[in-house]
Amino acid sequence: MFEFRIVAECPHTGARAGEFTTPHGVIRTPVFMPVGTLATVKAMSPRELEEINAQIILGNTYHLYLRPGPEILTEAGGLHEFMNWDKPILTDSGGFQVFSLAKLQKITDEHVVCRSHIDGSQLMMSPEWSMKMQGVLGSDIAMCFDQCVEFPTTRKKAEEAVRRTTLWAKRSREYFMSHNDTERQALFGIVQGSVYDDLRLRSAQEITALDFPGYAIGGLSVGESHEAMYHSLDVLSEVMPREKPRYLMGVGYPLNLVEGIARGIDMFDCVLPTRNGRNATVFTSEGRMNMRGAGYAHDFGPLDAECDCYTCRNFSRSYLRHLAMSGEILGARLFSWHNLRFTIRIAEQAREAIIAGRFPEFVREFTEKFHDDNAQA
Amino acid sequence: MFEFRIVAECPHTGARAGEFTTPHGVIRTPVFMPVGTLATVKAMSPRELEEINAQIILGNTYHLYLRPGPEILTEAGGLHEFMNWDKPILTDSGGFQVFSLAKLQKITDEHVVCRSHIDGSQLMMSPEWSMKMQGVLGSDIAMCFDQCVEFPTTRKKAEEAVRRTTLWAKRSREYFMSHNDTERQALFGIVQGSVYDDLRLRSAQEITALDFPGYAIGGLSVGESHEAMYHSLDVLSEVMPREKPRYLMGVGYPLNLVEGIARGIDMFDCVLPTRNGRNATVFTSEGRMNMRGAGYAHDFGPLDAECDCYTCRNFSRSYLRHLAMSGEILGARLFSWHNLRFTIRIAEQAREAIIAGRFPEFVREFTEKFHDDNAQA
Repeated sequence: MFEFRIVAECPHTGARAGEFTTPHGVIRTPVFMPVGTLATVKAMSPRELEEINAQIILGNTYHLYLRPGPEILTEAGGLHEFMNWDKPILTDSGGFQVFSLAKLQKITDEHVVCRSHIDGSQLMMSPEWSMKMQGVLGSDIAMCFDQCVEFPTTRKKAEEAVRRTTLWAKRSREYFMSHNDTERQALFGIVQGSVYDDLRLRSAQEITALDFPGYAIGGLSVGESHEAMYHSLDVLSEVMPREKPRYLMGVGYPLNLVEGIARGIDMFDCVLPTRNGRNATVFTSEGRMNMRGAGYAHDFGPLDAECDCYTCRNFSRSYLRHLAMSGEILGARLFSWHNLRFTIRIAEQAREAIIAGRFPEFVREFTEKFHDDNAQA
Repeated sequence: MFEFRIVAECPHTGARAGEFTTPHGVIRTPVFMPVGTLATVKAMSPRELEEINAQIILGNTYHLYLRPGPEILTEAGGLHEFMNWDKPILTDSGGFQVFSLAKLQKITDEHVVCRSHIDGSQLMMSPEWSMKMQGVLGSDIAMCFDQCVEFPTTRKKAEEAVRRTTLWAKRSREYFMSHNDTERQALFGIVQGSVYDDLRLRSAQEITALDFPGYAIGGLSVGESHEAMYHSLDVLSEVMPREKPRYLMGVGYPLNLVEGIARGIDMFDCVLPTRNGRNATVFTSEGRMNMRGAGYAHDFGPLDAECDCYTCRNFSRSYLRHLAMSGEILGARLFSWHNLRFTIRIAEQAREAIIAGRFPEFVREFTEKFHDDNAQA
């Protein structure tokens, strides 16, 4: 269980194709993981997720702690049962939401005190709290409770977060090993350090020294430039263990996905495909499109002629624009559906290219075709 | 084409099972028709509609005239092509929206002038306008342009609407026969008359004298009591031609459906299943439930143990309540899905019972089990 096997490597880049074994099935990497914050990947049904070949989805520990809460999730027998999803699930630790969503009140080495973004009630979060809740959720992959810092930040704050992330990783691991079901759940470490190379290296060394079955890179895709992100990945690729899966948190923008894979990343997650989808913004092999554009009113071609998803095989741009303009739920569905399938397919195509020994060609073809005037957005 | 064949009749009630042949397939009656106002049955995909055995859906001429408009619908080749639905479609005439939604400015025998509920722009609607637009839509069944009155209304206003509805039915028929594709589209007449028996009879006589391939009863389910509705149906059952399909407009409440079938109605439509679904209200074999109720938080049984729909076969009430409380799109989807399947299944079960000669037992069992404290709502 939780074995990571490298199937093929690109001789020209850091890209690799692998298989990670979990209690709910084997994950073929590189892989994009749709985000199912509140026990649902927004606008999608579980069987649609299977249809687009979602191999693993995310759950958010902070959100699920607030709604429906640990009591109901325990009664349900965990998140898989609750939401009717029998493939792998990864849960985050709740650490990220402390900084992005909840009202932070106090942070010490001991714990974090914040207020719920739903009803303002007080929460006390800690490594132990997170491991316990992730145990209730019963995810295949749990994440260490970490401290993420905003971008830009000072070196001092970034260094403090690295120190605390290591401290909390130790406490996460300790609690997890003695309380969680280690046969059914793996705990991944998280590397922080903002855009400071030496802090990234220090964090990677401290976290990998704790020997986790997989490692995530946190604190990227929070506002830094694409170049800064790629540079950090380059720095880390030297020190992240080759034999363990590497997970770049919060990344799902198509070009970042391709560049991340080229730098040895195996796993990605992001709300971008579904959030953009609900806003009628789609990604296709040719780039980004906002489907409210008047230019699509008389366009009876498919969204993306190269895509194999339900949306692209059945509906015209004209119809999809009409749904967007009318605020119809079916629009949010069809755009989310396409965006997820498109993003998952990038990882699938990258994997095929790595195995076939033509990954650099794949990257070149993809990036030459994909146009986006808002590439930094 | 457009042949109505009666397959079986209940010897104890007015109920009958039939088959109506259209260019897009045979409709087995009694039938419930989901409403697809803006070229989408809200929250449902076409393939989900096929899965729940929706045999025919509705489109709203007024809404589709405003969005996406006749130009785009013409380019698309009609509504079937535009929305990717290849089974039968019935379009209403736009007359009902004049009174329910648009801001009515002036009504004469010549035409109706009103303002769009979207942008306030002026529209001029008439029998000819409606026939032309329904020709663009290319529905299998078009409806005469009629005048619906609110409830309660005066006898004078109801009589005026009956007179005008007959006048407009003649003009609808005249335009339709010389401009529309009568091989591919049938025009149904509409009987008005509010709750006045003599006006209902007069309207039925005047409309049926025009010889349409099917007849609808309009102006019911607009606020009158269930008993008043049933009484009007009883009065009309004597004079509506037995050999033509009868369509009760705007009715989809489960008990009304069963009682309507017992009074010889063959076709029904209503937004109730989808509108209620988006509001987390569901109908089951036991009655009406609001899924936000705290009592469902720890209920891990299915929504309706007797239902064969995706929602009932895959998710618990606890999970569905969580989706409702969290405002998730998947909740709106799963509730709409179930409500539609439940309503369609009532018509299917009624048909089976009629054919098997046990329709009165079906009615008794259904009404005894179905409980609803808000039965008049």
